[in-house]
Amino acid sequence: MAIAARKRQAAHRARNALYAQSGGATAVFNATACGVIEAVRAARGRIGRLYAARDGILGALHENLIDTTREPAAAVRALRATPGAAFGSCRYKLKGLEEDHAKYLRLVEVLRAHDIGWFFYNGGNDSADTTLKLSQISARLGYPLCAIGVPKTIDNDLVGTDCCPGFGSAAKYVATSTREAALDVAAMASTSTRVFVLEVMGRHAGWLTAACGLAATHAGDAPHLLLFPERRFDEARFLAKVKRTVERVGYCVVVVAEGLRDAQGQFLAEQGSVDAFGHRQLGGVAPLIAHLVQARLGYKQHWAVADYLQRAARHIASKTDLAQAYALGRAAVRLGLAGRNAVMPVIERISTLPYRWRIGEAPLAAVANRERKLPAGFITADGFNITPACRRYLAPLIEGEAPPPYRHGLPSYVRLRNWPVRRRLRTVFRG
Amino acid sequence: MAIAARKRQAAHRARNALYAQSGGATAVFNATACGVIEAVRAARGRIGRLYAARDGILGALHENLIDTTREPAAAVRALRATPGAAFGSCRYKLKGLEEDHAKYLRLVEVLRAHDIGWFFYNGGNDSADTTLKLSQISARLGYPLCAIGVPKTIDNDLVGTDCCPGFGSAAKYVATSTREAALDVAAMASTSTRVFVLEVMGRHAGWLTAACGLAATHAGDAPHLLLFPERRFDEARFLAKVKRTVERVGYCVVVVAEGLRDAQGQFLAEQGSVDAFGHRQLGGVAPLIAHLVQARLGYKQHWAVADYLQRAARHIASKTDLAQAYALGRAAVRLGLAGRNAVMPVIERISTLPYRWRIGEAPLAAVANRERKLPAGFITADGFNITPACRRYLAPLIEGEAPPPYRHGLPSYVRLRNWPVRRRLRTVFRG
Repeated sequence: MAIAARKRQAAHRARNALYAQSGGATAVFNATACGVIEAVRAARGRIGRLYAARDGILGALHENLIDTTREPAAAVRALRATPGAAFGSCRYKLKGLEEDHAKYLRLVEVLRAHDIGWFFYNGGNDSADTTLKLSQISARLGYPLCAIGVPKTIDNDLVGTDCCPGFGSAAKYVATSTREAALDVAAMASTSTRVFVLEVMGRHAGWLTAACGLAATHAGDAPHLLLFPERRFDEARFLAKVKRTVERVGYCVVVVAEGLRDAQGQFLAEQGSVDAFGHRQLGGVAPLIAHLVQARLGYKQHWAVADYLQRAARHIASKTDLAQAYALGRAAVRLGLAGRNAVMPVIERISTLPYRWRIGEAPLAAVANRERKLPAGFITADGFNITPACRRYLAPLIEGEAPPPYRHGLPSYVRLRNWPVRRRLRTVFRG
Repeated sequence: MAIAARKRQAAHRARNALYAQSGGATAVFNATACGVIEAVRAARGRIGRLYAARDGILGALHENLIDTTREPAAAVRALRATPGAAFGSCRYKLKGLEEDHAKYLRLVEVLRAHDIGWFFYNGGNDSADTTLKLSQISARLGYPLCAIGVPKTIDNDLVGTDCCPGFGSAAKYVATSTREAALDVAAMASTSTRVFVLEVMGRHAGWLTAACGLAATHAGDAPHLLLFPERRFDEARFLAKVKRTVERVGYCVVVVAEGLRDAQGQFLAEQGSVDAFGHRQLGGVAPLIAHLVQARLGYKQHWAVADYLQRAARHIASKTDLAQAYALGRAAVRLGLAGRNAVMPVIERISTLPYRWRIGEAPLAAVANRERKLPAGFITADGFNITPACRRYLAPLIEGEAPPPYRHGLPSYVRLRNWPVRRRLRTVFRG
């Protein structure tokens, strides 16, 4: 084809889009991906091809792209029912524009090589920051780009949105697990385990810890104590409360956030516990708390650490969460088509009873690098439980069931083909 | 009422029955209870009142009985969907007839006081032993009693039955969790966690460890290594296999049984690890394995300990398991009405493809105090995975979904009223 003809064709061809997943996976991460892909497909003619970066922003830096266009509609649809991150995700934080200047230039180079007009970056507050900076540098370089953030995190700690996709499903999982394990403890307490400790995620924010509180509906119901990362651990008060609970109820269920800190602000799980191989114990605050109870009060204990199980538990996803995750993916594309830049679609709560929500829009500058902890009004005065206000906020987020399809007794999850996009650059990224 | 009149009435009144739950709770323990209660209700006129012992055999010894007759049919029905042990369970092993003679006499005294003609004891191999001895001593004392065992254990280690109620649901939970967590690890492996270790129950038998193997359907699928309690831990071979897996697949998912032992036969989890409070670490072999991998191979790791979550997870119960648990409860009553004694209804597998089963009957003497481990033919030659034969055996046991009702986003579980039965004895048991 003559150069002139190719230029004419390019002028008529719609520009492409790039989607990337960032940070920890969730049960509904791929539902957002599905929303983005389906919305782009529906916008045929206005957006060219939708690429996905392999392993998040690293794929963009390395020009390691996936062509989602070739993926059959049924496989894309099945993403709604598949946990994890279908294109791969990563933990890789870009720093400031000055400090990581070369990396941002590289990103723009890759975007330009593939004629990317829209960049959808699906992640937490770090990703919002990266997206914002990318919009700034592309503007500075005169490269036209809509950089759109798409929220995601089980931690529920993004500002500017009523809640974060991924959280509702993890919350439903941990609250269900608390209720179920508590029935087990209750059944055996007369001769066996008196105290059960469940560790949930949350290094800085206690949203998942709080969600476990939803398992209790009557006085005396488990969980009896929640240990929030927002409150310093007070051993004496904690033990006194455990003792009172066992004496009154017969047993005690404790939920502890992985990020629980002692009076000095140190993570309890990093206090220098040593395992059988002589290594410092990393993580695992539940065993510490459980053994403390056993040593000081003499109660037999058990403990569980849900770890990745809680953020991958698509089998018990919240239908509300799923709907929001999908809607946010679609909304991101809508914002992009409207030419919006440096923004993020968010969840706005219209009302709690009945629960109604809609998609709003937040500037990335208001979201980036900020963290939303549990409001003080959501924790009871004694620091060990959630208030009615917290309960009202949380309750709708775990509403509804959306089970995946099952095959041979197990959830049937899709695996995409992830067709690679041919590289156009001769340069190589060295991170 | 005159004594003569009372005697006449007693002669016409059907004798009562006693049901007790023993040992660790399961997701379908109460489904068996439901089967027993519903079958007794259907046998109106032939069996008088059905009592349940509060907290298992301890309730029988203490004459702490519950009258199930007053429980509404809907509540009884809801037991099918409720994990735990609705009447309470306990760990309390009666020893030999000579050694614990006084306790057995006490049991017969309580049974006699309440005119119990049938004793249904729902538990594992210890309970089968107690039931057997109770049948022997009641015969010796001339007290007419049908003592019937009813199988239950997530460990799947009872002999005389193809499988044990409770196991299929726990198996479905751990296999699902393995598959889900593996998707999370796969998504992040390029920059984050390379090795994930899930600890499952099984102190002596590796059935639940094996069940996790069902999560893999293609070559390279997780789980990549299973550490069975039937195989001594060989650190060098384990590490070599982890390394090969990470190099080939990009990540490695390990499932470890709580009862993993070292070359000397010592439980790994009891090797003298010390926590932050200076106490010996009890339980938690997953963190040991994960930290070993990190220290020796340098891979970032995460680990989870499911603990009670796996045996209480009614929300993802196996429909097959649920049906069998219920059927065994009903069958126990059928055996009792037929005057059988010292027996246990069991699951017989008629065929695997298609899966068909029926209820059979095993003498308690063949079940008591015996333990069924994984057959050697179910573990691959390298000791790290399951064979096709194992897969064929396990697959039907996790088939089918039977979700509980949900209310406000969480499984809705029944709580029985558990009306106490008035004591008839003046004597008190001191255990």
